[in-house]
Amino acid sequence: MQKYARVTASLITDLLRRRSRQSSRLLSSTHILDHPSSSSSSSLMSSSSTHPLSVATINDKVLKCEYAVRGEIVTLAQKLQEELSAKPGLHPFDEILYCNIGNPQSLGQQPITFFREVLALCDHPAILDRSETQGLFSTDAIARAWQILDQIPGRATGAYSHSQGIKGLRDTIAAGIEERDGYPADPNDIFLTDGASPAVHMMMQLLIRSEGDGILCPIPQYPLYSASIALHGGTLVPYYLDEATGWGLETSELKKQLEAAKSKGINVRALVVINPGNPTGQVLAEDNQRQIVEFCKQEGLVLLADEVYQENIYVPDKKFHSFKKISRSMGYGNEDIALVSFQSVSKGYYGECGKRGGYMEVTGFSPEIREQIYKVASVNLCSNISGQILASLVMNPPKVGDESFESYSAEKDGILSSLARRAKALEDALNSLEGVKCNKAEGAMYLFPRIYLPAKAIKAAEAVNTSPDTFYCRRLLNATGIVVVPGSGFGQVPGTWHFRCTILPQEDKIPAIVSRLTEFHKQFMEEFRD
Amino acid sequence: MQKYARVTASLITDLLRRRSRQSSRLLSSTHILDHPSSSSSSSLMSSSSTHPLSVATINDKVLKCEYAVRGEIVTLAQKLQEELSAKPGLHPFDEILYCNIGNPQSLGQQPITFFREVLALCDHPAILDRSETQGLFSTDAIARAWQILDQIPGRATGAYSHSQGIKGLRDTIAAGIEERDGYPADPNDIFLTDGASPAVHMMMQLLIRSEGDGILCPIPQYPLYSASIALHGGTLVPYYLDEATGWGLETSELKKQLEAAKSKGINVRALVVINPGNPTGQVLAEDNQRQIVEFCKQEGLVLLADEVYQENIYVPDKKFHSFKKISRSMGYGNEDIALVSFQSVSKGYYGECGKRGGYMEVTGFSPEIREQIYKVASVNLCSNISGQILASLVMNPPKVGDESFESYSAEKDGILSSLARRAKALEDALNSLEGVKCNKAEGAMYLFPRIYLPAKAIKAAEAVNTSPDTFYCRRLLNATGIVVVPGSGFGQVPGTWHFRCTILPQEDKIPAIVSRLTEFHKQFMEEFRD
Repeated sequence: MQKYARVTASLITDLLRRRSRQSSRLLSSTHILDHPSSSSSSSLMSSSSTHPLSVATINDKVLKCEYAVRGEIVTLAQKLQEELSAKPGLHPFDEILYCNIGNPQSLGQQPITFFREVLALCDHPAILDRSETQGLFSTDAIARAWQILDQIPGRATGAYSHSQGIKGLRDTIAAGIEERDGYPADPNDIFLTDGASPAVHMMMQLLIRSEGDGILCPIPQYPLYSASIALHGGTLVPYYLDEATGWGLETSELKKQLEAAKSKGINVRALVVINPGNPTGQVLAEDNQRQIVEFCKQEGLVLLADEVYQENIYVPDKKFHSFKKISRSMGYGNEDIALVSFQSVSKGYYGECGKRGGYMEVTGFSPEIREQIYKVASVNLCSNISGQILASLVMNPPKVGDESFESYSAEKDGILSSLARRAKALEDALNSLEGVKCNKAEGAMYLFPRIYLPAKAIKAAEAVNTSPDTFYCRRLLNATGIVVVPGSGFGQVPGTWHFRCTILPQEDKIPAIVSRLTEFHKQFMEEFRD
Repeated sequence: MQKYARVTASLITDLLRRRSRQSSRLLSSTHILDHPSSSSSSSLMSSSSTHPLSVATINDKVLKCEYAVRGEIVTLAQKLQEELSAKPGLHPFDEILYCNIGNPQSLGQQPITFFREVLALCDHPAILDRSETQGLFSTDAIARAWQILDQIPGRATGAYSHSQGIKGLRDTIAAGIEERDGYPADPNDIFLTDGASPAVHMMMQLLIRSEGDGILCPIPQYPLYSASIALHGGTLVPYYLDEATGWGLETSELKKQLEAAKSKGINVRALVVINPGNPTGQVLAEDNQRQIVEFCKQEGLVLLADEVYQENIYVPDKKFHSFKKISRSMGYGNEDIALVSFQSVSKGYYGECGKRGGYMEVTGFSPEIREQIYKVASVNLCSNISGQILASLVMNPPKVGDESFESYSAEKDGILSSLARRAKALEDALNSLEGVKCNKAEGAMYLFPRIYLPAKAIKAAEAVNTSPDTFYCRRLLNATGIVVVPGSGFGQVPGTWHFRCTILPQEDKIPAIVSRLTEFHKQFMEEFRD
């Protein structure tokens, strides 16, 4: 198996395209233009009207950026959906099943009642004192809303907050982190953000100066990372997860790729780890995490820990441990390791994607650099207050004894146990197919099966100028209405093909998905049998 | 008067600092790193532990970026506020009066009831069917919430939406634009964003390839623009507003600066116009807008129209006209001019800064470029749904006959007429001071008075290594608790000094502000009289 082989063909092609396009222009001009020389008269306006922009003249970092989760297959799905609404009988399926994106509530998952009660009350605090409100909302939701309002200066939920987020909410989040980890957390280390994505961009913006700066990223990876590195003009230094050992992360591979990058003059600045994994679903063992921390410490790398799936664990023998907890348990403090942990309200059992809440906990950076991060956060003023409130709620949900505790727990457990069942059902179904091998989803929201495609299918894909995995996914969509994302959007060992499928469709849909997928796959393999 | 003189001293100093720092490193490396050569063994881990980051090694575009609205004076204000809480008698004032930022609800402005009712109901739709809800919420708010929920696929307010925002809400916004302008608007041209700032960043990211790309910006300007251009590595090409003619925008100045930039090899790509003006408060005349449109058309510039203060007009002889309306009224369509209009829920009479809602209307771009904008929007998935809903509400508020119409109108008119009175009171107070001249705030939320500082004050500022306007603002804050932003944060004609003061403190605070400011100013002028 070509474990340490090159990044996917599509990435290489992209690379070649890019190189030939690279501008070598050198400019002596200044950033803020000096005033016109005194001799410059107010010259005549040119009379030719030119349309300002073409694809050839926009920022090519934008052109290079790719984001498969909402890419070509999803665009095709939207087209099919429109066709289905216009002509219901047109396709051999009656609905589109979106398994492309971790967006639980779009597939019918209901929000956690307590969280929504508090959000509604904070949106319209005028009703807090009204008697009807007692009948409509739980007592602890009302109490929590008051508590939150008292943490907001002037109770102004419509005001820009502190650039890092409302201090009282950061206190709550820090307390939640302390409770989770058993180690202190400082509210001044928390930066509340509109979901985790802007936080990742902020760190990439800080770390990347040029193509000479590299970021170690897992392959396969969540394409936010490759997109953000491309947009900021850096270099993605891939390290490969080992599919054969359940998407294992080996430090020998990290070292090898780091040295290789260094030998090419790349200044590797940070290591991205996604735990639980996306798209791969593995949960790292504690011991493995210690090795990773040690590696970052030794090599002077910032550890960017994507921990947004920390609540999504489906197997009894695995537990989530934050990298901060691990590093503190090794005796490492702020002086030893620079660590950023990303969290989001979009994932977990709550799945509140549309609220765009999240935070990063930034530790081990100097005060001067913290000031720079603060400044960048300030330029965007603050993240949305509902998202901030929700981030505080998920880190401090109802406790035993609270009126909502029982219903809250039932909702939470119902969602998580159902997700575990769905993960298992889909995994089993995939593994029963000819030429498909699928690792367990220990956590997160995805399965990333490997598909061993017949040579004839690969040729057919080449004939229509597409990658074999995209070819497979497009055929699947056209035949069944099931939307999955080709593995090439995440990166994969060249010559191997995968797709990412979420475990999010509601349980009553799973049997239909399994049977449609099975039937399609059989026909596909028949059609292209060598 | 040095109208066409150089950008401010502080910007020039910054420029020099920057130049000496510019790295000239050339890299032949690739963006996505190639695999290690087959001979590379898994080399030994280096044993030295190095802390990864220092200010000298982060992205210097981040270092260069400045954002005065939350800069040094605000940091000092926060410190004073903490001291006041700890020791109430410590300073000669008992509260900090934040006049630094357009954040109305932080100063006691109440949200519009109808908007908050709808938001609360959309956050917790489970109560829509309950009888108590009829008593708590207005009938039209309930109806509107149902209508909005029906526009959201699966009524899932917790799901990621379409990357441009929920289609039904974009329909509503487009209809609102049509009603405002009398010209068609296409929902597919709308990109909903978390406030206007991310939209501005998105366009700068698209337009700026290198320092060779310039963006024409007014001076004085809202520092989001200079910050965004710095972060994306472009060149700010300044054009000066004419203080003597009420911050007039002359196309002769635009042409002059454009030619000067061209002669230095700068590729000027876009023109930023802020109307109503920030920090300057002027409202452009229709005729002037037509000249600007013609200029952009002729020169092939993208017109970036910051129209976030479109509802904030305080003088009877001025009206807001969108640049889209103006260009369409001149017979110019998509083929003639590329135009982006930014709108936000943070401003207007609603002032919902914390909700982070807004949109840009993008017209006159090719489908290929639109696709690139869509892709960048997709990387961040979508803007927050509450902000999206609110953006649809401000573009489609209650109408005559709706239950809420009367109370809504009373709230709206109350806020706008009060803002007009506050603007006038502060303007008059400022103009009554020795050595202060202040143009009228025709619109927006700010006054930008010029202060003629005595030479002795300027020397005193130099002695403590700060700009004279910052010196003045710091003294004002320390003496009175009033927070304003030095003009150098916005840019000003060199040798002139200003500050930006919002008109947002509640009316009962205005007399105290006026008397404290007047007293301080007299003492300051006495102290530094030449």
